[in-house]
Amino acid sequence: MSKIVSLISFTETEQQHIQDIAPHYTITTGKAKELDPSLLREAEILVGWPKSKPDELLHPDSKLKWVQTWSAGVDYLPQEVFEERNILLTNTSGIHAIPISEMILGMMLSLSRNLKRAAVNQSNGTWDASEDNMSELHGKTMVIVGVGEIGKATAKLAEAFGMNVIGVRRSGKEVEHVSKMVSMDRFEEVLAEGDYVVNILPLTDDTRHLFNEQAFAAMKKEACFINVGRGATVDTAALLQALQDKKIASAALDVFEEEPLPSNHPLWSMDNVLITPHIAGSTPYYKERAFEIFIENLKAYVKNETLPRNLVDYSRSY
Amino acid sequence: MSKIVSLISFTETEQQHIQDIAPHYTITTGKAKELDPSLLREAEILVGWPKSKPDELLHPDSKLKWVQTWSAGVDYLPQEVFEERNILLTNTSGIHAIPISEMILGMMLSLSRNLKRAAVNQSNGTWDASEDNMSELHGKTMVIVGVGEIGKATAKLAEAFGMNVIGVRRSGKEVEHVSKMVSMDRFEEVLAEGDYVVNILPLTDDTRHLFNEQAFAAMKKEACFINVGRGATVDTAALLQALQDKKIASAALDVFEEEPLPSNHPLWSMDNVLITPHIAGSTPYYKERAFEIFIENLKAYVKNETLPRNLVDYSRSY
Repeated sequence: MSKIVSLISFTETEQQHIQDIAPHYTITTGKAKELDPSLLREAEILVGWPKSKPDELLHPDSKLKWVQTWSAGVDYLPQEVFEERNILLTNTSGIHAIPISEMILGMMLSLSRNLKRAAVNQSNGTWDASEDNMSELHGKTMVIVGVGEIGKATAKLAEAFGMNVIGVRRSGKEVEHVSKMVSMDRFEEVLAEGDYVVNILPLTDDTRHLFNEQAFAAMKKEACFINVGRGATVDTAALLQALQDKKIASAALDVFEEEPLPSNHPLWSMDNVLITPHIAGSTPYYKERAFEIFIENLKAYVKNETLPRNLVDYSRSY
Repeated sequence: MSKIVSLISFTETEQQHIQDIAPHYTITTGKAKELDPSLLREAEILVGWPKSKPDELLHPDSKLKWVQTWSAGVDYLPQEVFEERNILLTNTSGIHAIPISEMILGMMLSLSRNLKRAAVNQSNGTWDASEDNMSELHGKTMVIVGVGEIGKATAKLAEAFGMNVIGVRRSGKEVEHVSKMVSMDRFEEVLAEGDYVVNILPLTDDTRHLFNEQAFAAMKKEACFINVGRGATVDTAALLQALQDKKIASAALDVFEEEPLPSNHPLWSMDNVLITPHIAGSTPYYKERAFEIFIENLKAYVKNETLPRNLVDYSRSY
């Protein structure tokens, strides 16, 4: 029998649901390091991806045909091998739209409404009613770089706050709540317009270190840079320098080139920087939404149809 | 000549603007304690209100006819004396709608997206990616108690976040973005529906300690209580007890019965409580918006017309 192996644990009800859709498959769940290596080699469908030692999955005898990741980013998977072997790859992109868009607005308000400072003051029992740097989102301009599902949800929120939203995306194709959409060739031009520059890009060869010295130099000195995309799309040294030289005013960062951010990194102690530990996408509803994506794809897979949700296009790497 | 005395400093341009509208008045600006007491006694129009020793203003020979405060709350003014002497009172209510509605959402997101915890962890250089208590605003219910201009602006934002908004106001009159509006007699009934209970009430005899033991007992145990209204509308001891007994889950508080919140108060050290030092209304745009209100009122005043912006109704105290 063909095998579904899941590195994500499923409840009995969930397993039964899978079994009903794919009766000719056996289902095994467990952590990669606890599973029998030969089982991994026999998996036709894999849910999740092991952080280390995926050797068995890429073994010449591997039966792997489809990987459903439990993450939106797929930069850590061997896409070239997948493409070569015609292995399908689907991710959980889209279900992050709600938690990450809320996180983005939360990060912005933490800085603009002095909530970060209040939290730190509270931990010292300090009542400090000084209002320096307090501001409003209303009337400001947000530039969203990488407008997919998360960007669309973010634009909707920003619009409600009375912000003007500019978007940058490969296609340059317009979306609702974004007043002006441009393609990547106008990246630096629109950076100059943002009071808030929000990076939601995936990591690809094209986006690595896209936010470099030149990009930060193009921004307003009042700009707040927010990164909830991927750490390596930013040249961290250039970002730090831009903050130190006051080329930009502040930053809110959820992802980093090196995670955890090294404990001696100067970003930790900057008052105008908010650091969160790669939790932007976290939500108690993650699993139910990811499971829904997997189920929809599984239904198509067993009928030999094109996978409908989040099939990765290897030509663009996401 | 009749006198305008302002305890708020105005630029030369602003003073000229006032003079143009009210050519038959002299304008003096300065701090209450620095101004000649006899000048205060002669003021017909006063902008601002001295925190202490307003004796001269209430002297039997006082010429005071109109006070334009520089705050939304007017509970600290001697309204009974004003009413008796037919002194008009206008406040700056309404201009707080943008900063306070943004603050409310910021406070909610600080708790729901773990941003308060991240800020404290950052101050210790700690990367803690645990996701306990992380949540979403999407799909949750907000109960706004006291729906005026701030409540309306807050409801608009909450709706964009995919929240269901219930409002409580004296009139029970419906407003946009609020799916259900009730009058005060259904206060406790709707408290039970709120994942977020937002208090924006002014302080009056009717609202003092409205949020008491019974009110907190009526709330969900998952509820987050937010106070950006007035401190004394809440029985602080009852709130603390409700948090300690887990009758409610969390709180975000900008105002307190005693301000600053005493340094030994147990609220300071609660992880599930966010304390901000009465800064919710703070905005760099405050003065220009307040000035606009004063100018509109002044134009009407010199023509002997009813003051159009924020005339306090002494029968309801706000």
